[in-house]
Amino acid sequence: MITIDFEKRGSLTLTEFIYESLRKQILDGSLHEDEKLPSKRALALHLGVSVITVQNAYLQLIDEGFLFSIEKKGFFVSDIARHLRSGEEKAGRTDARDGKLPTVQESSFADFSSNAAVPEKFPFSLWSKTMRQVLATGSDRLLRRTDVFGALELRRALCRHLKEFRGMDISEGQIIIGAGTESLYSMLVQFLGREGAFAVENPGYHKAEAIFRLNGASCVPVMIDGQGMDVDALESSGASVAHVSPSHHFPTGVVMSFARRKQILSWACRAPGRYIIEDDYDSEFRFTGKALPTLQGIDNEGRVIYMNTFSKTLSPSFRISYMVLPQGLIKAFSEKLGFYSCQVSSFEQFTLARFIEDGSYERHINKMKNYYRSLRNNLITAFNNSRLVEAGTIHEENSGLHFLLTMRKEIDARELQERWRAAGIHIQLLSDFYYGSGREAAGGWEPAGGRNSIGGGVGSAGGLDVAGGDSFVVNYSGIRRDSVAELVRRMDGAIGGI
Amino acid sequence: MITIDFEKRGSLTLTEFIYESLRKQILDGSLHEDEKLPSKRALALHLGVSVITVQNAYLQLIDEGFLFSIEKKGFFVSDIARHLRSGEEKAGRTDARDGKLPTVQESSFADFSSNAAVPEKFPFSLWSKTMRQVLATGSDRLLRRTDVFGALELRRALCRHLKEFRGMDISEGQIIIGAGTESLYSMLVQFLGREGAFAVENPGYHKAEAIFRLNGASCVPVMIDGQGMDVDALESSGASVAHVSPSHHFPTGVVMSFARRKQILSWACRAPGRYIIEDDYDSEFRFTGKALPTLQGIDNEGRVIYMNTFSKTLSPSFRISYMVLPQGLIKAFSEKLGFYSCQVSSFEQFTLARFIEDGSYERHINKMKNYYRSLRNNLITAFNNSRLVEAGTIHEENSGLHFLLTMRKEIDARELQERWRAAGIHIQLLSDFYYGSGREAAGGWEPAGGRNSIGGGVGSAGGLDVAGGDSFVVNYSGIRRDSVAELVRRMDGAIGGI
Repeated sequence: MITIDFEKRGSLTLTEFIYESLRKQILDGSLHEDEKLPSKRALALHLGVSVITVQNAYLQLIDEGFLFSIEKKGFFVSDIARHLRSGEEKAGRTDARDGKLPTVQESSFADFSSNAAVPEKFPFSLWSKTMRQVLATGSDRLLRRTDVFGALELRRALCRHLKEFRGMDISEGQIIIGAGTESLYSMLVQFLGREGAFAVENPGYHKAEAIFRLNGASCVPVMIDGQGMDVDALESSGASVAHVSPSHHFPTGVVMSFARRKQILSWACRAPGRYIIEDDYDSEFRFTGKALPTLQGIDNEGRVIYMNTFSKTLSPSFRISYMVLPQGLIKAFSEKLGFYSCQVSSFEQFTLARFIEDGSYERHINKMKNYYRSLRNNLITAFNNSRLVEAGTIHEENSGLHFLLTMRKEIDARELQERWRAAGIHIQLLSDFYYGSGREAAGGWEPAGGRNSIGGGVGSAGGLDVAGGDSFVVNYSGIRRDSVAELVRRMDGAIGGI
Repeated sequence: MITIDFEKRGSLTLTEFIYESLRKQILDGSLHEDEKLPSKRALALHLGVSVITVQNAYLQLIDEGFLFSIEKKGFFVSDIARHLRSGEEKAGRTDARDGKLPTVQESSFADFSSNAAVPEKFPFSLWSKTMRQVLATGSDRLLRRTDVFGALELRRALCRHLKEFRGMDISEGQIIIGAGTESLYSMLVQFLGREGAFAVENPGYHKAEAIFRLNGASCVPVMIDGQGMDVDALESSGASVAHVSPSHHFPTGVVMSFARRKQILSWACRAPGRYIIEDDYDSEFRFTGKALPTLQGIDNEGRVIYMNTFSKTLSPSFRISYMVLPQGLIKAFSEKLGFYSCQVSSFEQFTLARFIEDGSYERHINKMKNYYRSLRNNLITAFNNSRLVEAGTIHEENSGLHFLLTMRKEIDARELQERWRAAGIHIQLLSDFYYGSGREAAGGWEPAGGRNSIGGGVGSAGGLDVAGGDSFVVNYSGIRRDSVAELVRRMDGAIGGI
């Protein structure tokens, strides 16, 4: 008889859970092709649920091709799993043979250099259900493209969300939906023009700089200190647009101080045509204290363009981001770029709108916040119980999905990085996020905030004085919690003799 | 008792059809909130189908919130329709009150200036079914973003499709998936650079030119004659990239001749760094004869970048397009733009891949081809039976979803356009698609191909000599077939006295 462990049911309905369990067993081969399933009645009796519950699960599986039924004989497993498996095998073979460009690979044991999320954490059946609900609302509006601003429903939902989560008071006319932050960067260069330079954070997220440059803008890296972007350096750079991430800078983890926020806003107001792009991509995951208001929220002069994405909070496979324009720029944007269509399909926009409106998105973020907090704690505890405790110090771990592991000066971080790579662990060094000779010019990274030694545990200040060495950027969102022990064992094993 | 007319069932299963019919009746209010539905057994008896068929339809409707059941009482209509309707009403009200940017409006009776498709023609339930099948294949791959080239499955499906439909022999490594042609244009400027100018067709699709320019490229309009782009003019323009639509030029409808195809290819080979962007957006809808091979197919020197979209063949609300790079450019593209993510969500890529692979896409195109042919014939017959017959001539009506209606010189086309607009009919003039003084410089539009008078009927040559006047661009894909009679009545009514 089929075993279904209701302990793992979580928030699924009985039907959904039976459906999920059977689907998994078909896919992993525990239920094999042509195998006869128990009758609805027998399984219902066995599981202690009603016949209709089992029946609905069976019908869903038939609908989706996993089962077929023969009248008066019963329910059987179809050959779908074999098809799916052979498809994947074929895909793998052809890739290797043709030497074509590979798709995303997962050769390493753990990758701290990736922004990927752990797929299991995505509320897949809830999202599917929302999709089905949207499909059921009828086709007409789903088949109409939306203008460059995006679907009104989604912009409305975002307004309410930003009001609740970030205290931002905006109207739906200010929002522009785009297919990922990358597309929005490109749109912004087209909108703001290429006359003035774009200041980017140094160290910083090189992708943003690369996209601005590819779009024909000139870029000038401006140093970051423990408060955020250096506004004097920004002023003397001659840039007219500044791209910053005040809520949680990547890769240093610095949160821009309130004083610095005021300074950068007044920089923007000092000359016409100056704008700040506020990249708030990670702000949902703040673990302690209250978040500072956004630059957008304290900007009275209409100088801040706010942007955020769903790739971190939902899944990187969704290409949905948005930006919030100052009221004063809406007309110009509409005149210059208004002929574009929104890049996101109407169907996905409506699905996301509904997902936000019915509270699913908020519940998901809260769940993920707990999950990431616990993942981070596991990781730090494991670091504390390893020889890493003698080699480095953790910084900026209370916000966002990465922190810094700053190594003692005597340690050859580059050599350690290589050893870890050989052990299947990819992790990037902070020095690689500097532009040109930025790091030397700045005399090394020296955060202004408190510093936490690993030995001292999470959140405690003081400990070993290890400043000055290079730092590892511990980007942990894609790490599986059950791999933490083995991961730290490998990192620990590689450290000997360095 | 509920009436369900099985004559309209089409290719739906009995369950799907019952489900669809009930859903519609709930949405349009024929079945009102809290109304009790017949028992499964009663409805099955009434319709002459099995109880399980009705039951499955009821379960699906419960799943999607349209019905609810009360044990031992039966099935009732939920308040979903009211929610959906009130949502729309609210949306409408707020728009009006706030004076915010409107969403797509439909104020006119008929719009010949839009690329929209008629939503009812989209195979909505088939697409939904494909979506559900993709969801059922499991979450992991759907939650991984794909690289800039896009999902391998979709690129494979496109290879096979292009082989069958266009005789193109390419590999999946050459394909890049993008969120609409607009995004691909932007990507191409980023890839090819801004040193050389982009030649665009004159008259032409101004959106392409606007996007190239917004992306920082300089553009030079090059005249089109009855064979396609004038290659001598292209040579002397100094451009290094030429954007052309050989299979069906918009708005003239010209199909580039084979001789001209060879000429433009040899232009591209005469100097390094020259490329042709072949926009094949409308090639699926050719009504007579065999399509000429694509430029891509006869290019032996790797000079052609081919692109096409699904917005015409499926729905404008899908933002999925693709381009095919020459083998020789793959590496450079990957090095320069390889850090981008694909802009289309993995889920939609997999759904489309499956839709192509299982033959649904091909069947849909064939169905649409028949539909558009009959729509075009209705329209032309109605024109023939109106006073339009004395005023103009139809050109280039055998390919793609638009044709030209060239007016006699004596007719003030601009005045007629205004009168039609007042009657709710939007239609653009060819002269508005010229850049600058292009039209005067070229001495007016004079197609080289045969000319069909309206009086002579579809496809016959000769008739009134009306060349030299301005032409209306009859872009008919978004016109409802049942509106043709009224539409032509209005157009006819407005013509008097001009």
